[in-house]
Amino acid sequence: MRLYGYFRSSAAYRVRIALGLKGIVCEQVAVDLARGDHRNDDYMAIHPQGVVPTLITDQGVVLTQSLAILEFLEERYPQVPLLPSEAVARARVRSLAYIVACDIHPLQNLGVRRHLSEVAGFDARAADDWNRHWIEQGLDVLEQRLAREVETGAYCHGEAPSLADVCLVPQLYNAHRYGSDLARYPTLARIQAACDTLPAFQAAHPHRQPDTPAGFREVG
Amino acid sequence: MRLYGYFRSSAAYRVRIALGLKGIVCEQVAVDLARGDHRNDDYMAIHPQGVVPTLITDQGVVLTQSLAILEFLEERYPQVPLLPSEAVARARVRSLAYIVACDIHPLQNLGVRRHLSEVAGFDARAADDWNRHWIEQGLDVLEQRLAREVETGAYCHGEAPSLADVCLVPQLYNAHRYGSDLARYPTLARIQAACDTLPAFQAAHPHRQPDTPAGFREVG
Repeated sequence: MRLYGYFRSSAAYRVRIALGLKGIVCEQVAVDLARGDHRNDDYMAIHPQGVVPTLITDQGVVLTQSLAILEFLEERYPQVPLLPSEAVARARVRSLAYIVACDIHPLQNLGVRRHLSEVAGFDARAADDWNRHWIEQGLDVLEQRLAREVETGAYCHGEAPSLADVCLVPQLYNAHRYGSDLARYPTLARIQAACDTLPAFQAAHPHRQPDTPAGFREVG
Repeated sequence: MRLYGYFRSSAAYRVRIALGLKGIVCEQVAVDLARGDHRNDDYMAIHPQGVVPTLITDQGVVLTQSLAILEFLEERYPQVPLLPSEAVARARVRSLAYIVACDIHPLQNLGVRRHLSEVAGFDARAADDWNRHWIEQGLDVLEQRLAREVETGAYCHGEAPSLADVCLVPQLYNAHRYGSDLARYPTLARIQAACDTLPAFQAAHPHRQPDTPAGFREVG
């Protein structure tokens, strides 16, 4: 299995976490988004949309869209499940994951940033403000739900990490990156701290990837 | 079962199609987004995020996020399946659905339009241009994939409608609404024409809902 990703693509980060939690061995290939390598002929031949991640299965099947990859991994590798077994509980976990994947992340990705610069003249500061607006609006909803709903445990759903945590933790990394005050989110911070103790979350962190630039790399 | 929606919310439209395809009887309650009713205390008590759709099950469970609702319906009501049975095929259908649900729709919803007006001074024309940019970028990808991939049939995946069609058709309604030239997408147009022949897609159309304003209502 081979994963095309980028150290701080949060969609790739999600897939790295899930692979780690399920104990799936996977070769990683870096696609340097900052250098525009996702628009190279080589990568576009694999994934014509020119985004990461792409997962190539051992049978050579090309899978795209991080949430579709996560559901595929869940179905094909049910060990260490990332969704509960009951339909209402599964809907809860997915609804939390989709708050990140549909309501936050699409509004703060690199393509949107570039388009805002082109059509609205946004400078870096205006773009960061834009990102923070959507990140904080979504995290407010997540904090409110997770603090109130009885199904919340040490993790977003009960006592084991789920697809919700797999999506939440990369989004919190982005929130920090764009200067959001995470003290507003005590429940999210508590869940992140629980995730941080798990080797799969540690290994998937953007600052510990083969393509992490030296300036971001964590020592040890 | 009760669905809170709005005639031209494309997330609610998705759920209406799925309910119809599966033959599930469901009471519909209109939440007038144009009038701001999604921010009323009554609705916020049901869904504190203040967006549609919300599905209330017969057991009183509150489900949010259209994709989580669609997956719930698929799991709880497996008759007339909207996902194929094999994992790679399921991943393909989901990846097509997520192009709509993650790459297009979040960028062209009402909240984004309002924020662009506030922070970038966008007028209606600039906002429509913004919407068309993201709609066409996403539809280009879908057209390219669906025209090329052998799994495409009369519908997005084979000879029966799937979650991909359930997401695509409402997005094409929005594309038309914002003035995109659908002649660029012959494969998508062919699939939409196939969906248009099915009673579930017909009944779910925004112009045939109880809350459809008279000016939008279709005769007959």
